[in-house]
Amino acid sequence: MSDGHQPKTLRCRFQSKSYPIFIGHNVLACAQAYPKFGEQLAIVTNAKLQDLYLDKLLAALQHRVNIKVIEIPDGEHYKTLATYQTIIDQLVQAKFDRKATLIALGGGVIGDITGFVAATYMRGIDFIQVPTTLLAQVDASVGGKTAVNHSAGKNLIGAFYQPKAVVMDVATLTTLPEREYRSGLAEVIKYGLIRDAGFFTWLENHTGLLLTRDQDTLIETVARACQHKIDVVQNDEKEQGERALLNLGHTFGHALEAAGRYQDYSHGEAVAVGMVLAAEYSKHLGWLHQDDVSRLMRFLERLSLPTKVPANYQTADLINYMRSDKKVHNSIMRLILLKQIGQAVIFDQVEEALLYSVFDAYRA
Amino acid sequence: MSDGHQPKTLRCRFQSKSYPIFIGHNVLACAQAYPKFGEQLAIVTNAKLQDLYLDKLLAALQHRVNIKVIEIPDGEHYKTLATYQTIIDQLVQAKFDRKATLIALGGGVIGDITGFVAATYMRGIDFIQVPTTLLAQVDASVGGKTAVNHSAGKNLIGAFYQPKAVVMDVATLTTLPEREYRSGLAEVIKYGLIRDAGFFTWLENHTGLLLTRDQDTLIETVARACQHKIDVVQNDEKEQGERALLNLGHTFGHALEAAGRYQDYSHGEAVAVGMVLAAEYSKHLGWLHQDDVSRLMRFLERLSLPTKVPANYQTADLINYMRSDKKVHNSIMRLILLKQIGQAVIFDQVEEALLYSVFDAYRA
Repeated sequence: MSDGHQPKTLRCRFQSKSYPIFIGHNVLACAQAYPKFGEQLAIVTNAKLQDLYLDKLLAALQHRVNIKVIEIPDGEHYKTLATYQTIIDQLVQAKFDRKATLIALGGGVIGDITGFVAATYMRGIDFIQVPTTLLAQVDASVGGKTAVNHSAGKNLIGAFYQPKAVVMDVATLTTLPEREYRSGLAEVIKYGLIRDAGFFTWLENHTGLLLTRDQDTLIETVARACQHKIDVVQNDEKEQGERALLNLGHTFGHALEAAGRYQDYSHGEAVAVGMVLAAEYSKHLGWLHQDDVSRLMRFLERLSLPTKVPANYQTADLINYMRSDKKVHNSIMRLILLKQIGQAVIFDQVEEALLYSVFDAYRA
Repeated sequence: MSDGHQPKTLRCRFQSKSYPIFIGHNVLACAQAYPKFGEQLAIVTNAKLQDLYLDKLLAALQHRVNIKVIEIPDGEHYKTLATYQTIIDQLVQAKFDRKATLIALGGGVIGDITGFVAATYMRGIDFIQVPTTLLAQVDASVGGKTAVNHSAGKNLIGAFYQPKAVVMDVATLTTLPEREYRSGLAEVIKYGLIRDAGFFTWLENHTGLLLTRDQDTLIETVARACQHKIDVVQNDEKEQGERALLNLGHTFGHALEAAGRYQDYSHGEAVAVGMVLAAEYSKHLGWLHQDDVSRLMRFLERLSLPTKVPANYQTADLINYMRSDKKVHNSIMRLILLKQIGQAVIFDQVEEALLYSVFDAYRA
C-alpha cells in the first residue's frame, strides 16, 4: 500500500455518517482502501484519467464484476445539468438501483458532478471519491459539497452529500500539469493563513520538496490540509458559520475568475491573488503588517503563483462581480480577512473606497 | 382560523429537523400557519390554483414584500428536469440567495418538484408545503421525498429534504375534481389496511361524510392518515425498512399505470386496484380470508374506485412492469402484503405463477 511511504487515515464525522479518508502513495491501486459495495458499480471519469488510472483502479476492484465506466468531457465548462443528465441517463439505462455505488475518479469537476448525481439518483446512492488533483484532495472532495454550474454562476445547483470514503493517492499528483499542481498549493496555503501559522511556516520550509512533488511531503501536506478542512466542516456541515472562513481569497478570486471569463485564471490562481488582496485589506484595518503581506507574496511567487491583478481589469467590474457572488445575501458583502497569519475572521463592514485602493495597490 | 372547525397540529421529527403540520379549514389564509422567513419568497403553483387560492395565500402573507409567483404547467407530464430548470432559472434571475424560501402551492407534482428545487438550489433553501389535493396532503407532502420524473420512470431523480412547515387546508379539497378526490381516498384507506384496522372501520363508517367532503370529517381523516405517515417515516427517513410498507398496492399499481401509459388510471386508482391484488395474493398465502378481500372491494366500489384490471392489459406485460419498478433490486421483487386488515408485511418470495392467477382473478 505504501511502497515505503507511510499512508495516513483521517476520519470525517457528520451527524448521520462517518467515513474514512485514505492518503498515501499508490493507495488508488489498493483494494483495502475501498468500502464494501454491491453488484452495481460505475466509475465516472474523463478520457485522460481513464488512460492514466483506470487499469490500476480496476485492478484494485478486480474481484468485482459489471463495472460500468462513464466518461464525461474534461473541464469546468462541462460541469452542467446537461452533463449531469447524461450520467443519470446512463445509470437508468444500465438499470442501476438504489443500492448502486458511484466512484468519482478525477478532479473537482468530476467529484462535484458525480457527487450531485449520487445525491439525487433515486434520492441518493453511495459514492466514493478518488480525487486526482491537489485542489480536489485538499478541498473539493472533503466536506460533502456537490454541485453543477448554472450559466449565471458556479455551483448554483447542488446538495450537501457525504461520500462513503475518500481515497487520495498522491502518486496521481505527479501527472498533474505544473500550473494545475501549483494552483492546488494556493488552497493548501490558505489553511495555514486562516488557522495554522505553524503549517504556513512548515510549508514555506518545504517549498523545494513541494516543487519536486516529493511523495512523503505530499502525504503530510495533504493530510494536514484535509484535517483542517475536516475540523472546519465537521463543526459547520451546512456552512452557517465557521465554514465561511474557508472562503479566504474566494470573493476576490471569484471576481477575478469572472472578469477573466474563467479563461485567464485557474481557481487556485485566482485564490492566490485573492489572498493577497484580503491580506492587503487586513493591513489597512491595522491587523496585518506589510511584512506579513510581503511574506505571503514572496511565498506565492516562489511557487509561480500570481499575486497581481491584470492591468486591463476594471476595478468597478471586479467590485460588481464581488457583489454578485452567491455568498452575498441581503446585499451585504462579507469578506474573510486575517487578524494575523493563522487567524481569519468574517468581516462585513466592507468599504468600497478601500476596495478600490486595495485593487489599485496590486496592479500588474 | 377554524370557522367553527377545530384545526389540528401534528409534528414531524427527523434527525436534523422538526416541523409542524397544520390541518384545518381555511388555514391556508391564516398568517400564523406560516413559519418565519426572509425577504425573498417565491410561490410555485399552476394557473388553476393561482386563480383559486393565490389571493388568499397572499393575504395571509400580506405584510411581506417582493413575493415572486412562479407558474408551472399542470400535470405529471411536466414533472421533469426541464420544468425544474425553468424554476431554477427564475430564482437565479431574481437573484434569490440561500436565505430565500419557496412555497409549494399545489398537488404532489408541484410539491415534489418545488421540494427538489429547494433541496438543490444553492445546496438547499427553505420551503413550505401547501398541499391542495387529498393525495398530496396524506402522502406526498409528508416525509420529505422530493423528485422529478425521468422518461424511463417516475421519481428517478430526487432527494430526501424536509420542509419547514406543511399547511393543509381541507377547504381546498372541496374544489378537487371528483375523480382526483376519490383517488386520494385510496391512499387514506391504505393506512388503515397496513397499520390501523380501527381507522379502516372508522373510514367505512364515515363513507357518506367522506363523499360529501364534510370538513370536520376531512380534518380528522387527514390528521389520522398523516399521523400514520409521520410514525412510519420518522422511524425510517431514508426508506430502509418500515417505510416500504407504505408501498402496499404500489408495485401492482405502478404496473397498471405504466400499462395504461399513465392515461387510463390516476395514481390513486391504480393503487386501489393494486391493494385488491395484494389482498388477493395475501389470501392465496392463507393470510386474508375471502371476506376481507370482498370487504375491501365493497368499500372501494362505494367510493367509485376501480377494483379490476382492464381486459386488454396483458398479464406478461404487467409482470414485466412490476419487475422494472425502481423498488426492485438484485432482481428480487418485493411485495407488500397483508397478514390481516391492519397489518402489512414485506414479502420477497413472489411466485410468478401466483401473480398470473391473481391478475386473472380480477379481470374486468
